[in-house]
Amino acid sequence: LSQRVTIALDAMGGDQAPRMVLRGAEKALKRFPQVHFLLFGDRDKIEPLLAKTPRLAKCSTVHHTDEMVTSDAKPSTALRAGRRSSMRLALDAVSDGQASGMVSAGNTGALMAMAKFALKTLPGIDRPAIASFFPTLRGESVMLDLGANIECDADNLVQFAVMGDAFARAVLGLVSPSVGLLNVGSEELKGNDAVRNAASRLRGAYSPVNFYGFVEGNDIGAGTVDVVVTDGFTGNVALKTAEGTARLFTEFLRAAFKNSLLGRLAYLLGRGALGKMRQRLDPRRYNGAIFLGLNGIAVKSHGGADALGFCNAIGVAVDMIQNGFIDKIRDELAHLEPPAAPAGPQSAAL
Amino acid sequence: LSQRVTIALDAMGGDQAPRMVLRGAEKALKRFPQVHFLLFGDRDKIEPLLAKTPRLAKCSTVHHTDEMVTSDAKPSTALRAGRRSSMRLALDAVSDGQASGMVSAGNTGALMAMAKFALKTLPGIDRPAIASFFPTLRGESVMLDLGANIECDADNLVQFAVMGDAFARAVLGLVSPSVGLLNVGSEELKGNDAVRNAASRLRGAYSPVNFYGFVEGNDIGAGTVDVVVTDGFTGNVALKTAEGTARLFTEFLRAAFKNSLLGRLAYLLGRGALGKMRQRLDPRRYNGAIFLGLNGIAVKSHGGADALGFCNAIGVAVDMIQNGFIDKIRDELAHLEPPAAPAGPQSAAL
Repeated sequence: LSQRVTIALDAMGGDQAPRMVLRGAEKALKRFPQVHFLLFGDRDKIEPLLAKTPRLAKCSTVHHTDEMVTSDAKPSTALRAGRRSSMRLALDAVSDGQASGMVSAGNTGALMAMAKFALKTLPGIDRPAIASFFPTLRGESVMLDLGANIECDADNLVQFAVMGDAFARAVLGLVSPSVGLLNVGSEELKGNDAVRNAASRLRGAYSPVNFYGFVEGNDIGAGTVDVVVTDGFTGNVALKTAEGTARLFTEFLRAAFKNSLLGRLAYLLGRGALGKMRQRLDPRRYNGAIFLGLNGIAVKSHGGADALGFCNAIGVAVDMIQNGFIDKIRDELAHLEPPAAPAGPQSAAL
Repeated sequence: LSQRVTIALDAMGGDQAPRMVLRGAEKALKRFPQVHFLLFGDRDKIEPLLAKTPRLAKCSTVHHTDEMVTSDAKPSTALRAGRRSSMRLALDAVSDGQASGMVSAGNTGALMAMAKFALKTLPGIDRPAIASFFPTLRGESVMLDLGANIECDADNLVQFAVMGDAFARAVLGLVSPSVGLLNVGSEELKGNDAVRNAASRLRGAYSPVNFYGFVEGNDIGAGTVDVVVTDGFTGNVALKTAEGTARLFTEFLRAAFKNSLLGRLAYLLGRGALGKMRQRLDPRRYNGAIFLGLNGIAVKSHGGADALGFCNAIGVAVDMIQNGFIDKIRDELAHLEPPAAPAGPQSAAL
């Protein structure tokens, strides 16, 4: 059950690194006692912190480097000049087989560029995507791409569907997740060529996933499907629009309760209830954007995450490793192309 | 101040038409006593309802037709076969000059196709767009396109910026509304060619609008800019994602309060406060999607709108008419192209 799992951490990535990273690792250790950490970063900063947490120290190995990728570094610069950075060394640990996955709260663009280079994409995948999960009326769903690929063709979207399916099975524990393509309407003729052609392939007899059809923006929060597939431009806008709407709602709620004596009393009595709601929507629960389509597991924590958020990002990596995500996705990709036998009538649908 | 304004209404469009349309018109009359309505639709259904509302009857003229556009009609079919429909006759009343604007709660695609045909686009506009306003932390903002144009180039986006600017000035009463282009980041190099090229033109010396720069999805709810410009695919997804998130939040809130005795008590005491919040976010306040870029005013009410929602859609049309929206936008479009004189250095920026 609890085979030892080794995770490489970019100890220097994130606004509050390395303190936040180590605190997150300590929390994760309580949840996953089978984990061993490889900590990449500045020994002089890491070791004094480790000295105070003997339990984490016992389960960690420090790999010193005094280089790190800054939060404003360009991906190309990081790729060229960051070969000794904590982020890159953590990725190299995964490609070398020393670690089964890595987590960083550093620069997203640099991490994506380096991850592609160090881990390579899986056979059958043209471009990796960024995925995340989020709360819905029905539980939790996965969405991708969240910004790695600004322009996508039908092939990319079909590959995203496969990656999202494997991810939902590995991390959400679903047997046959439903997959929807984000569009501006549910009818077959809606949308652009990329979504229409991708839908036609996903509807076919050799579809690699349980395809629901098109979904619209409101289906994201409704949880109509387990996996929402879209291009990186739309996905990024949708994710951030949802975040902005949640903030608007929270602020309006606060203002409404503050504005009268009765409201303030209601707020006092309702604190427990509101706290429960906040917990359900807590962005720290949904921290951990996953780079899918790579030959290795790389999870990006939010740069402003706290220890609990970082711990959850580690949790995502552990889930993916223990559920054999890379094997699952390899297996699906191998079956993606229709066999050479004559295609049935459905494969030509639409 | 209150010159008589004639508005044509598609009395047969919407789930609860014609009753909802007439009730909405009655409400609007209280707010805008200067309005006269031309009611297009089935006399046998309209007149019995009018008989019960003598005040509205006095300010209305019924134009009988027994044809109407169904909610599932294809735009091309409606355009070809719906020449005597209530929707089309209401549009014709605007193009003939009998009415200064029209409102319909009918089929969106059919209305857009017919409006383009009957009203024509303004000189300088390639494609009309759908705009709406929505609540933000700072008040209200406008977003377009919300779904009329699935694929947009830089020219379209620049034209949308001009239309949104004129609309915000006419309906929100702003003197120099700030305009933002929706993108996946704020840096100049982010996004696709269309947004980068549009931004470069809007940043130039001859920019027709007060251009803020790129905004992201979370800026929509934050109200960072007065006008959010985007293509119809992204805009439609963003709008519906915001709606879905608001519903998720509302449901979680309800569940949280219902789950304990204390929560239920808090809910009772907080009803007033919650009601105020609901009012601020009431979708009926934001009913009325406006077709911009046409040589005439056409407002689309939500098909499921109630009388208050429809009344608000009429209000948007009245505001546009009284604030001389069509003249404002014509004037801006005339100044859109840089003059023939040598361009300053800024116009070549980026």
